[in-house]
Amino acid sequence: MSEIKPFENIVLIHRRKLKRLCVNVKPDQKIHTQWGVISTNDIIGKSPGSIVRTHLGEELVVFRPLLYEKIEHGRIFRYATQIVRPRDWGLIISFSNIRPGSIIVEIGAGSGAFTAFLCEIVQPNGFVYAYERIEERAKIAEENLLKLGVPKLYQIKVKDPSVDGIDEKNVDTVFVDIPEPWTIVRVAYESLKPGGMLICYVPTYNQIHRLLIELNTCRFFDIKIIDHFYREIQADPNAIRPLLKSYVFSAFIIFARKIL
Amino acid sequence: MSEIKPFENIVLIHRRKLKRLCVNVKPDQKIHTQWGVISTNDIIGKSPGSIVRTHLGEELVVFRPLLYEKIEHGRIFRYATQIVRPRDWGLIISFSNIRPGSIIVEIGAGSGAFTAFLCEIVQPNGFVYAYERIEERAKIAEENLLKLGVPKLYQIKVKDPSVDGIDEKNVDTVFVDIPEPWTIVRVAYESLKPGGMLICYVPTYNQIHRLLIELNTCRFFDIKIIDHFYREIQADPNAIRPLLKSYVFSAFIIFARKIL
Amino acid sequence: MSEIKPFENIVLIHRRKLKRLCVNVKPDQKIHTQWGVISTNDIIGKSPGSIVRTHLGEELVVFRPLLYEKIEHGRIFRYATQIVRPRDWGLIISFSNIRPGSIIVEIGAGSGAFTAFLCEIVQPNGFVYAYERIEERAKIAEENLLKLGVPKLYQIKVKDPSVDGIDEKNVDTVFVDIPEPWTIVRVAYESLKPGGMLICYVPTYNQIHRLLIELNTCRFFDIKIIDHFYREIQADPNAIRPLLKSYVFSAFIIFARKIL
Amino acid sequence: MSEIKPFENIVLIHRRKLKRLCVNVKPDQKIHTQWGVISTNDIIGKSPGSIVRTHLGEELVVFRPLLYEKIEHGRIFRYATQIVRPRDWGLIISFSNIRPGSIIVEIGAGSGAFTAFLCEIVQPNGFVYAYERIEERAKIAEENLLKLGVPKLYQIKVKDPSVDGIDEKNVDTVFVDIPEPWTIVRVAYESLKPGGMLICYVPTYNQIHRLLIELNTCRFFDIKIIDHFYREIQADPNAIRPLLKSYVFSAFIIFARKIL
Repeated sequence: MSEIKPFENIVLIHRRKLKRLCVNVKPDQKIHTQWGVISTNDIIGKSPGSIVRTHLGEELVVFRPLLYEKIEHGRIFRYATQIVRPRDWGLIISFSNIRPGSIIVEIGAGSGAFTAFLCEIVQPNGFVYAYERIEERAKIAEENLLKLGVPKLYQIKVKDPSVDGIDEKNVDTVFVDIPEPWTIVRVAYESLKPGGMLICYVPTYNQIHRLLIELNTCRFFDIKIIDHFYREIQADPNAIRPLLKSYVFSAFIIFARKIL
Repeated sequence: MSEIKPFENIVLIHRRKLKRLCVNVKPDQKIHTQWGVISTNDIIGKSPGSIVRTHLGEELVVFRPLLYEKIEHGRIFRYATQIVRPRDWGLIISFSNIRPGSIIVEIGAGSGAFTAFLCEIVQPNGFVYAYERIEERAKIAEENLLKLGVPKLYQIKVKDPSVDGIDEKNVDTVFVDIPEPWTIVRVAYESLKPGGMLICYVPTYNQIHRLLIELNTCRFFDIKIIDHFYREIQADPNAIRPLLKSYVFSAFIIFARKIL
Repeated sequence: MSEIKPFENIVLIHRRKLKRLCVNVKPDQKIHTQWGVISTNDIIGKSPGSIVRTHLGEELVVFRPLLYEKIEHGRIFRYATQIVRPRDWGLIISFSNIRPGSIIVEIGAGSGAFTAFLCEIVQPNGFVYAYERIEERAKIAEENLLKLGVPKLYQIKVKDPSVDGIDEKNVDTVFVDIPEPWTIVRVAYESLKPGGMLICYVPTYNQIHRLLIELNTCRFFDIKIIDHFYREIQADPNAIRPLLKSYVFSAFIIFARKIL
Repeated sequence: MSEIKPFENIVLIHRRKLKRLCVNVKPDQKIHTQWGVISTNDIIGKSPGSIVRTHLGEELVVFRPLLYEKIEHGRIFRYATQIVRPRDWGLIISFSNIRPGSIIVEIGAGSGAFTAFLCEIVQPNGFVYAYERIEERAKIAEENLLKLGVPKLYQIKVKDPSVDGIDEKNVDTVFVDIPEPWTIVRVAYESLKPGGMLICYVPTYNQIHRLLIELNTCRFFDIKIIDHFYREIQADPNAIRPLLKSYVFSAFIIFARKIL
């Protein structure tokens, strides 16, 4: 059945203001929002798309949250680092071999946001080996992944692959989000299957420069670099216009393929 | 094993020029390229990432193609219509509930490019019901999907849902890419599960305007409109710069959720 | 001579933080900044590009301010309305006939920011007739123009041209920045010289739509609509990258020519 | 009077197709266009905004051309090099001290397109000292400037300022559009008045990097780097939408100020 169950993550969206809040609905509790208090028992058992009211009479709509909502709008996800932005998740899918069933090595798991996305996409028989050299971050990523409720298709490894190498061989994709991606290029090559893809997420031109030099010396080929952004359009039928201010940059996305 | 097998689709990328060509490798045939002729038997059995040579000595690298390559760079896919652009495929994944296992209704299958992408993503137990009212297009889409070799998780229906309605109920997502998306809003509402998502792909402001009015009268909520673009960066370490000319627009992407 | 004189407008830029502040340097006064206090007498007589120090020892560099700095970073300009953004000023110059000597009618002077820019550009023998129907705004615009110190090549008229018409005939350019630009099209046509240009600044697609219909019925021709934005790049040689967040929209700029 | 005179530059715009062509109207001649032939005597004496007809009956509208039309759409301007793009001309005006009366040094005059624009803006008492080290280019620039009919407020100097220095002192602005702008930084500093501006137009990150290092060692300050782009919107009231393909990059624009 599709009703909201106890201990599910939900998103509450204010009916008029369209502000949103993600929470986990433990039974017999109160959710304190900026629009008033609401009991979790008033939410459990409701269908997604139902309207609930706070003690102040404000109308909220309840839904099962999308992954990006749980990460960006909630009390569920904890930021230890910058994350791979949700808008970039999908672009990486568009131009890569990441699909259901893929075996992926992720270098620089950080807070686990992209790890979570990958786990959703590689279902049901893919896997994500997520390396994070800083133990404290790895712990936060573990907690985040549990709270986000994504499929358990990941293993977080507290290791620095630039020193220790990558344990897995013949993987489909290596994704790198660390400040010195060029230190990973050689070990990524060893880990990838023939024709496998290396994808790097780097914020500066300086990093692109060093990375390109290393990619060219390490038999990576077909390098594609994307600078990606979007604007949201105001959804008011009487005033359709781009929003004035927006995040216009996150990081450059670099794709390369292993050549023999 | 990972070697290229007979009757597989492959992509050949010129070593220096980075131009690419997708073909199907039937045994005992010649592939005529602009860089010379190559025998399919020289390709079958090779590992992805291998270098092959044309009769003119030009070096080509052979890979298993990504879906977007098969659609944009090949002799495999046939265009009957404008398609949902590959860069937009992923953005739709970022901000929607389309995941492995999703049950999706697609209105306006066109040439089948986005149908193919959806089939890859909803593996192994999701499904795509793809409506296309023009029989000739539906046939081309069927052929394209067969040639692209995507999982057979689709059914193409030659029907006009604005007239005949949508057969499926309780679906996760309705995706609409037709010139009059507002004619679908009511039937999409009936077809969607509570909290399900309607996603429309519309190129003009005029269409957004009519669609927004209809969405607001039909109990759709949480409307998000994205204007999405990117630039490619030239991957030359001595001249890192955005490419001068680019496709900066395809269509606006509109997301909405069914409210009860 | 080039030294800073009493009663000039100046800009102070913090040496390290690159934050800026525009003020007028009246003799024998103290300027209170967030970085400490500085005496105007320490600034008067200095060359532009000189370094001055606050009582806290913070280093500030003094320059003659550019117009956009006086408007966006100072204690000089007072906002009564949204303004035509500085980045759009120049684009209008690129694609219009606004040049030294131009006779311009501006409808919707608002706070006077674009009026000020036009006065700088049409020197020494052009002129700007600036209409503003709201008296309070016209007063603020007058004050702003005086304080900005631009050439006195303007006349502010408290009139509504959609009701009263435009007094001037045979002008080079009519620039319109009001919510209902379509109400001006007919009178703009009467006011323009043959081949003259109408330029409108409109934030929404809805306005473009009504405006286009009116332009097409009123013998305007060669309509060009621009959606214009930029990103700033961080000027750190060790981390060259686009700034993360930016104003990505101000208004659409519409150009049209009077046809006979 | 405003009628088209003999030997003027004009632009002809096809009534329906909106394609344009710039030519000089010498008396008693035929203009051969892709839409048919038209006599210059049928154009001379007409008001701008008049409609003329080719021998095939196609309607063309005649206007006095804007500078960018003469450069991009005509038989008037000859390209010896890449030029500073028209959309960038204005942005440079928005954020610089280039105004009527400015004294400007331009390094890398190339084909003279930006020189022409500067001459229009600095009227009536400014001046542009345009350096071009390659004699052949300097000649083409001279010819272009004559044909464009801009005010004679320029001098083209066949010299390499990185070797020979800049003759002029105390100038307002130095504008640099050459492949190695860092070779000019020192001499630009010497040439500029206190608080003057250096503006560089550079296409690659690699050039920004070297330039930034040089600017920082040479007492330039307040460095601003802009990555500038726009889209044109289709001006069809029934299908308002961004054009699909566009020039999304020309060069980065870098502004800096001389500090003492």
